[in-house]
This record gives sequence, structure tokens and C-alpha cells, in this order.
Amino acid sequence: MTHKTPQFITIEGIDGAGKSTHLARLAERLGAGGRELVQTREPGGTELAERLRELVLGGAAQDGLTEALMVFAGRRDHVRRLIRPALARGAAVLCDRFTDSAFAYQGGGSGVPWTVLQQLEAWACESLQPDLTIWFDLEPEEAARRRAAARAADRFEAEDLGFFVRARAAFERRAGEHAARFVRIDAGQSLGAVAEQLDALLRERGL
Amino acid sequence: MTHKTPQFITIEGIDGAGKSTHLARLAERLGAGGRELVQTREPGGTELAERLRELVLGGAAQDGLTEALMVFAGRRDHVRRLIRPALARGAAVLCDRFTDSAFAYQGGGSGVPWTVLQQLEAWACESLQPDLTIWFDLEPEEAARRRAAARAADRFEAEDLGFFVRARAAFERRAGEHAARFVRIDAGQSLGAVAEQLDALLRERGL
Repeated sequence: MTHKTPQFITIEGIDGAGKSTHLARLAERLGAGGRELVQTREPGGTELAERLRELVLGGAAQDGLTEALMVFAGRRDHVRRLIRPALARGAAVLCDRFTDSAFAYQGGGSGVPWTVLQQLEAWACESLQPDLTIWFDLEPEEAARRRAAARAADRFEAEDLGFFVRARAAFERRAGEHAARFVRIDAGQSLGAVAEQLDALLRERGL
Repeated sequence: MTHKTPQFITIEGIDGAGKSTHLARLAERLGAGGRELVQTREPGGTELAERLRELVLGGAAQDGLTEALMVFAGRRDHVRRLIRPALARGAAVLCDRFTDSAFAYQGGGSGVPWTVLQQLEAWACESLQPDLTIWFDLEPEEAARRRAAARAADRFEAEDLGFFVRARAAFERRAGEHAARFVRIDAGQSLGAVAEQLDALLRERGL
């Protein structure tokens, strides 16, 4: 199977799955050969969206739908001001979390209906979808152990195991619905083995 | 015609129509007789919604739909945390602007489709509607003259006349769609005459 070289790449996974660890390697590979790489993140990525991120990760919202409205407001700003202009001038865009995280966290985790999130996605992203989504998949129990060893918890990281079990199931559902762009990485393996999976994927995609 | 005494009262109108001038009188009348009165405003009214207000009035959003998502996120928080609990314990609630302003500003002013705002309203307010909406209606040209004389402009007040012409038309449309709760005050009259209109209205509603 051959693939078009992906230009808009997102990385996804529950907290503790190891996304951040492998982000630098990904950025290095994507920026090789002098191609412009825009590295960004969600929630966030623009001044407005970063302000909204602070509110969301600080736990300012009381429920999932309020949170979803904020997250998608930031996403619309991010898509319009940063992502689309970068893609239009030929840059590659590497985004740490994107819309799939809203389906996982506000959807699976907090129970916002899928149809509500699909409507918000259409408003925020219009037709834009990533070309490639690298999903770091890990057992929620193992992710919790890794988080506990690593850092203080933000609003989501403080959620219980059930939240992340539901979030992971939502990533799985989303991966099924968007199979053409989703690639699952087994994040339960050793660091070196995960890096090898990533390298193989990037080679296969011409990156 | 007799009316149930209204418990949830909103005041609306384009900037410069004189809402603020008459707010104190309204609050005084509504709080008379020892009834608890919660006086609040939108965008805003809760800690989260006030943070979102700063972003919206500061002009952080680039387009009307981004703004609408932020405004309705704040509204959902405001309804859940402040307005519904106050109404449930029997307090009167007086709110300076509410959902009708989103139809006027993000809808009429910035062109967000009515159907999008209706969906957002359903998510933010569920079935909650004000019992009485006092609409201070004024010619946009006269409102612009009053604003210019009074204060520095926020993100909306800096808009051109066309914006306020469309916003006023949207209030009119909304008044037609929610005729049972809308009362139009002719804000083009003198201060004293407007106060008399208000007094007559409050008497009629048992306030």
C-alpha cells in the first residue's frame, strides 16, 4: 500500500501514553530536508486558544459540554489563524492532540454525545482532517502508573481510571471511523521499541 | 391582560441605548419588599464566564462563530452555576444582556446563522428562557452619537453603523419570535419618559 506524504500530522493518546517523549524525534524527522515544520498543540496553538487552554486545564469548567464549547472555540481559532495558513504555504504541521482528543476526553471521558462533538467539529474545522494521526495506545492502568511517577496532575490527569478507560475506548471508536488516517502505535512496549515503530511508520510514509 | 410576576428578567439593546442608566432603578424595584435579587450580566456572571468576557470584549476572536462558541460556553456556566440555582431558591434574577444579545451581535452583527445560534442556545440554556425581556430600542445612529459622547469603545462598540443596524434588526426578529416575553421600550425618548415607560411596565407586572 502506498501513501501520499502526509502534510498535517496529529499525535493522540491518553495522558501517560508517551506522546511527549517521542515528539522531538517526530519533529526532527518532519523538518528534515529543509521543509518548513510548524509544531503546535491543542488545546492551544494561538494566543486566544492558549488562554482557553489555561481555563480548561485549570478546571474552570463544571461540565464536559462547557469544556467542549471552549475547546472548539480555540480549535476554530487555531485552524483559521495557524493551521490552514501553514498548510496553504506548503509547510508541514505537527500537532500534539487535535479533535480526536475532544472525542476521547469530553466525549468518552465526560459523556458529551458524539453527535454534539461532530457538530462542533464541523463548525471548528470545516472539512479539515489530519492526513495522518499517530495514536499512542496504552492500557489505562499502565498510563496511570507512568503519570503518577512523572508529574503533578492537571484537570484531566486528576480523573479516575474509569475516565481514561472510556477515553481510550473513544479513541478506538474514532480510529475505526477514520481508519484511513489513524495509525496505532503500541505504546506499551519499551521506549526503543516504540521509537522503532515510529521510524518504520515514517519511512513507509516517505518522511 | 394579566401576567404572572416575572422572576427571570433580562434587559437587552444595542450599545448606547441606555440600559445601564436604568439598571439601578430596575434593581431597586425588583429587590423591594425583601425579595432576594441576583443582579448579573452577560457575557459574564461567573468567574469562568467573566474570563471569557474579557477575551470576547478585548477582541481576541477573529470571527463571529469563534466568539459565539466562547459566549455560549460562558452562558452554559452562568446558567448552571448561578441563574438556575438562584431561580430554584426563589430569588429574582436580573441579567444585563442574555441570549438575545448573541442573536443580535454574533448573529445579526457578525453573520453567524440563526440555526447555529439556536443549537448553541439549546446546549447552553436547555429550556430556560427569561420570563420578561425589556428591550431598549433605539435608532442605531442615535445610539452611536450617545456612545461617542460617553466612553471608549470595546470590541463591539468599535463596530460600524451597519453592524448595529443589523444587530437591531436581529433584536426585532427575536422579539417577534419570543413575543410573549419581549417588551419594547422606546429608548429614543427623554430619560424621564423612558423611566416612566419602565415604571408603567413594572406596575403592570406586579413588580
